[in-house]
Amino acid sequence: MAFHLLEKDRDGAVELGRALAEAVTAIGPCERCRMLSDGALCPICQSAQRDPSMLCVVESPADVVAVEQSAGFRGRYFVLLGHLSPLDGVGPEELGVAKLEALLDEGIVRELILATNPTVEGDATAHFLADLAHRRGIRATRIAHGVPVGGELEYVDGGTLAHALAGRQTLT
Amino acid sequence: MAFHLLEKDRDGAVELGRALAEAVTAIGPCERCRMLSDGALCPICQSAQRDPSMLCVVESPADVVAVEQSAGFRGRYFVLLGHLSPLDGVGPEELGVAKLEALLDEGIVRELILATNPTVEGDATAHFLADLAHRRGIRATRIAHGVPVGGELEYVDGGTLAHALAGRQTLT
Repeated sequence: MAFHLLEKDRDGAVELGRALAEAVTAIGPCERCRMLSDGALCPICQSAQRDPSMLCVVESPADVVAVEQSAGFRGRYFVLLGHLSPLDGVGPEELGVAKLEALLDEGIVRELILATNPTVEGDATAHFLADLAHRRGIRATRIAHGVPVGGELEYVDGGTLAHALAGRQTLT
Repeated sequence: MAFHLLEKDRDGAVELGRALAEAVTAIGPCERCRMLSDGALCPICQSAQRDPSMLCVVESPADVVAVEQSAGFRGRYFVLLGHLSPLDGVGPEELGVAKLEALLDEGIVRELILATNPTVEGDATAHFLADLAHRRGIRATRIAHGVPVGGELEYVDGGTLAHALAGRQTLT
């Protein structure tokens, strides 16, 4: 990209540099959910169309975009900007857990959906946050682990298959 | 493979040919579950260690191997050798549904686990078979659809993410 810009599109490089500098000054975390936003509150937190009783916790802003594109969720988000990782010095403080607790204490959230990554760290973070919800009498749920839609069983890894079997649901 | 055998390993080619011919004559479907087997009954159907009250329905023998490798299941299997596909002329008869019904009628199976592929055809087949179970008062379950273990939310497709959210489970 650097070669292309310097050889063929020097105006573009200047433009890109200015855009990046603007983005760095203008875009920061949403005061409420820590999603990247160009205002104090992100559009999702501002929207009256979203259900404030459901709060979906994800690890990164990119995850918010992925869940929004799946169009399966109409609640609000909270972005941890990471996961618990004591070895890397990432504890509850770095993940903004105090802010999340303040949100839960408002008494509006009735379900905390833990959509952290399906990794060991993501699972540990989910269980830690579920505890916070339970202490306030709020229901905590975890997104389903299982076989991805459209795939073939034969090519799914053993761990996922074991989870898919353990998490099987009754058909009615 | 053909070039390698003909250029460098002609003895191996003869050996492979004999092995294939033997396999074709000796290996056929298990009389009970339609899994590939070198006897009338496959080792899983013969084993007294397996729980006969749980029957897992899969599309292909390779799926049985995949589920066995995940080590998450101790029941028995039934192999459809395909899925419902009316356009290709594949109906209940081709899938050995009569044999499956006879198994269910024995009254030993208490749960029918539908582990057909997470595709449109696999889902349709699962719902068709769930009906058969329900008519006999047998519980029918479907393996969980969701995010694969170890992945990252950001790279999961929208359909799977929507399923994972819809299928979320309460953490306790």
